[in-house]
Amino acid sequence: MLALRYQGGQLAVAEVGKPPAAGEAVVRVTLSGICNTDVEIVRGYAGFEGTIGHEFVGVVESSPDESLTGRRVVGEINAGCGRCALCAGGDARHCPDRTVLGIVGRDGAHAEFLRLPVVNLLAVPDDVPDERAVFCEPLAAACGITERVQVSKETRVAVIGDGKLGLLCAQALALTGAGVLLVGKHPEKLRIAAARGIETATLDETSGRAREFDVTVEASGAESGFALALDLLHPRGALVLKSTFKGATRMETTRIVVDEINVIGSRCGRFAPALDLLRTGAVDVASLISEEYPLADGARAMRRATERGVIKVLLRP
Amino acid sequence: MLALRYQGGQLAVAEVGKPPAAGEAVVRVTLSGICNTDVEIVRGYAGFEGTIGHEFVGVVESSPDESLTGRRVVGEINAGCGRCALCAGGDARHCPDRTVLGIVGRDGAHAEFLRLPVVNLLAVPDDVPDERAVFCEPLAAACGITERVQVSKETRVAVIGDGKLGLLCAQALALTGAGVLLVGKHPEKLRIAAARGIETATLDETSGRAREFDVTVEASGAESGFALALDLLHPRGALVLKSTFKGATRMETTRIVVDEINVIGSRCGRFAPALDLLRTGAVDVASLISEEYPLADGARAMRRATERGVIKVLLRP
Repeated sequence: MLALRYQGGQLAVAEVGKPPAAGEAVVRVTLSGICNTDVEIVRGYAGFEGTIGHEFVGVVESSPDESLTGRRVVGEINAGCGRCALCAGGDARHCPDRTVLGIVGRDGAHAEFLRLPVVNLLAVPDDVPDERAVFCEPLAAACGITERVQVSKETRVAVIGDGKLGLLCAQALALTGAGVLLVGKHPEKLRIAAARGIETATLDETSGRAREFDVTVEASGAESGFALALDLLHPRGALVLKSTFKGATRMETTRIVVDEINVIGSRCGRFAPALDLLRTGAVDVASLISEEYPLADGARAMRRATERGVIKVLLRP
Repeated sequence: MLALRYQGGQLAVAEVGKPPAAGEAVVRVTLSGICNTDVEIVRGYAGFEGTIGHEFVGVVESSPDESLTGRRVVGEINAGCGRCALCAGGDARHCPDRTVLGIVGRDGAHAEFLRLPVVNLLAVPDDVPDERAVFCEPLAAACGITERVQVSKETRVAVIGDGKLGLLCAQALALTGAGVLLVGKHPEKLRIAAARGIETATLDETSGRAREFDVTVEASGAESGFALALDLLHPRGALVLKSTFKGATRMETTRIVVDEINVIGSRCGRFAPALDLLRTGAVDVASLISEEYPLADGARAMRRATERGVIKVLLRP
């Protein structure tokens, strides 16, 4: 089968063996999405080698739980050990021995087939097309913010970064009723949020809004985004970090101390609520799709995904 | 009067005018303590110029509230505007227009006299000698950690840094009943905590303890301290930042995201509970006093305070 692999410092589509079931479900991928984390892996993030990709929708080809066979599914990316207290509690996201689809010790989704534990799979309702379902993982990550910080109608939230993650975070947070401002550099991307009734601002337009917000979300992955997220926050506010990338960030930790800020890491979210939002159309993901490439053109698609103005690039095996 | 001033890039004891009352209490300083923040101010932190110092005990010489005159007092260092919602709520620590004794817009405590609003002053019981009372401000800051993060008997806490701040943090946190480990480089400083029944470890001795702690407190002010504080923390743990210093820290923010850490800034605490701990002797501060200098030797004392092995240096006007 074809798979988009990063190995020995090279990114390329290769012909590889179909994954063995090994007690897990085998899924025929019908559509996968390129995430910034994929791009960062190619820059050395997480030290991962193998098939990249962790956003997908597909059809179960085989499964230890036969009722799943033939079902269209999305899949949580953290595969736990199944034995530790965290896994026993039904949350493998912080299992110390977990593998992570296309990120840690497990081949990923930019391939014709992948495998995942049955417990990771979630059936996709018929009325959710693949082009929406493929956003389940990043939308779950956006929704996961409210697992980590309280957001209500009274909360003033600023999301920094108008890329695919920022656009999903802004929409997910706006659904709580909170006042959300999306800050970005790209008028055409900001317009997607504005069309959903979300207030938007370019960087220049944030001057004079220092200390106005209860919660800021750093979804730009840039040092300047972190600094702006601090600027906009009032004392004892919460700065949510969403971006994962290779390397270290310089930050004025003293500002965190003096203003007694909470810097809160947020990674993966729950799939079921995200899938529900995709089903009801409460979040616009269609506008986020910039281009679709055949999997065979995966390396070119990855380059394209880093270019200015591009939002989500999909791969079709 | 004499005052230890940082001005025009120079630190020196100078003869200056006694502060005018200007509606505030004037306090004759009897003892002041050198904090790392004082040292950082001389490195450019906070952009402050004037009389440095914010840890003191003294006697009220004059006061709009005459009942205070002649009383021995300590003083909260944040002087609020008195009009904003925060000040009205009795907490000037985050008043946006505050001045801060010896740090922001207000001459400090390494002087023969200082002035502070009456509301900032707290009378010192007769059975608390000056040499203990002078620790009220840094001990309050240590106690302030529990305002920002929940610590109970079940909490496993590691404090990084065996300097004066780390030694106070470890002792304050141990009083909650939490299991506390103090990590440092100086056996003679670690022994002070060990004498209070606190577990201690040198850096080498922390290997193999990764992900063991619920809460870590970074009180070393070093980049390596931050990295260790992350190492020792389990996923979704809390990393408390206590140190303020000039410049930026390089940190792997991705680790904060992947392990969903809370990085929590903590600055000033409440004086009353700290003074109570000093009165009952629940915290050993006597062992922290390395040396005492006359205020006239303030510049020399400041140099001495940065030398290896030295803990708290006091100045006596």
